[in-house]
Amino acid sequence: MHKPLILITNDDGINSRGLRRLIEFMQEIGNVFVVAPDSPQSGMGHAITLDSTLSVQKVSLHGLDNKFEAYSCSGTPADCVKLALQELLPEKPDICVSGINHGSNASINVVYSGTMSAAMEAGIEGIPSIGFSLCDFAYDADFESCKHGVQLLVNEALQHGMPKDTVLNVNFPKTRGEEPYKGIRICRQAKANWKERFDKRQSPSGKDYYWLTGDFRLLDQGEDTDINALEDYFISVVPCQFDLTAHHSIATLNSWNIHDS
Amino acid sequence: MHKPLILITNDDGINSRGLRRLIEFMQEIGNVFVVAPDSPQSGMGHAITLDSTLSVQKVSLHGLDNKFEAYSCSGTPADCVKLALQELLPEKPDICVSGINHGSNASINVVYSGTMSAAMEAGIEGIPSIGFSLCDFAYDADFESCKHGVQLLVNEALQHGMPKDTVLNVNFPKTRGEEPYKGIRICRQAKANWKERFDKRQSPSGKDYYWLTGDFRLLDQGEDTDINALEDYFISVVPCQFDLTAHHSIATLNSWNIHDS
Repeated sequence: MHKPLILITNDDGINSRGLRRLIEFMQEIGNVFVVAPDSPQSGMGHAITLDSTLSVQKVSLHGLDNKFEAYSCSGTPADCVKLALQELLPEKPDICVSGINHGSNASINVVYSGTMSAAMEAGIEGIPSIGFSLCDFAYDADFESCKHGVQLLVNEALQHGMPKDTVLNVNFPKTRGEEPYKGIRICRQAKANWKERFDKRQSPSGKDYYWLTGDFRLLDQGEDTDINALEDYFISVVPCQFDLTAHHSIATLNSWNIHDS
Repeated sequence: MHKPLILITNDDGINSRGLRRLIEFMQEIGNVFVVAPDSPQSGMGHAITLDSTLSVQKVSLHGLDNKFEAYSCSGTPADCVKLALQELLPEKPDICVSGINHGSNASINVVYSGTMSAAMEAGIEGIPSIGFSLCDFAYDADFESCKHGVQLLVNEALQHGMPKDTVLNVNFPKTRGEEPYKGIRICRQAKANWKERFDKRQSPSGKDYYWLTGDFRLLDQGEDTDINALEDYFISVVPCQFDLTAHHSIATLNSWNIHDS
């Protein structure tokens, strides 16, 4: 029987706990191949490295059986996927999984997410692709709780294939006691933004600098959103697309006075 | 009469030619306020700076009248907009314009674009917002040719407001002779990807490294796309959204066997 080839990446870096758990979960399903950033890349959005070089190193991962190839890369999550697909992988993978991110990528966070940019990059190349995140920033976040949901969704994706030009953004609720979550809900992205606060400080030499911080502001009371699912202790699954066209706005813009300029 | 307050940013950096031309074009329309990266940030996607500090410096721009405030920032284009809106601007701007980018952000390039991530960031905050790019990588690219189109679109946006949760991705065709372009077309994002090539080299110490390079691959023959408009020497205007939900895929995913797990 053909064992699926599974490309694994993330944005928290090659040494993160979420990546190790994801590797173990995927080894029960297929042959894994790992290409991940050599350092944490959170907030990298869909960045790629255009003006500097990329270095790549074959690595062993402490505590795992290492019956798979793993590479650490100096670039962004999107770079890792490009490099894996074009240079490192022996053949086209059956699926790409990214994560498990240590923290939420639900709602508007998806646009800043390196985890999802890696998954999107594989999706752009026509490969079924899923980004996984656990909505728990705590040091000892329980990635093990994601096992059943991650394996179920990957198996379903391998069986059914992915809807055309669609990439899944999967977020797990923070665990509470024994029951990790109640089930899975297919959702839309909740409307929200961040209310930034810039913590202004002065360097020893008197120069101003800032730390970016802020609060998540939900602007959406819909029951069909990812945030609502997570608040109800469901796994949220948002199908995402990389065609950013706001098709419903085209008619409005055509009514602007721009056509006999 | 109220003069509009116009936030200007970009991803090619505070010293780029495209930014200077955009400032001059906007000074004929309103009061400008500039916050741009201190160095080029092409390919930065929607990155934000989470794990290091941001520094900001008030600057004068050589060759301009400097009857406006301008700041250079150590962060990404999205950082610049966040910092401008939360810390630097005296009041909410009437519009945000980003660019003029030195090179195309049409089609799939939008997802890697720092120019558009800055525009999107302002859009997420509810501010009418437009990213401008000139599809000409040549050193002496003719940004002046964009003047009429840029001013027309900004004036229309100020007059009509922007369709809800929509940000405009505007690309100008490369000029040819006297006529810079034939008109303006409202378009959808063309389906395309990049066929990457990694140029593999060895450092003096024998370590492998790569340069990312590649070819644009158009996968879309539609006549309503941005690429088609640009090939016909029209300015392409794609309304973009930051709700990435692939709504049409929700029903398909609900047919997966995930609901009694």
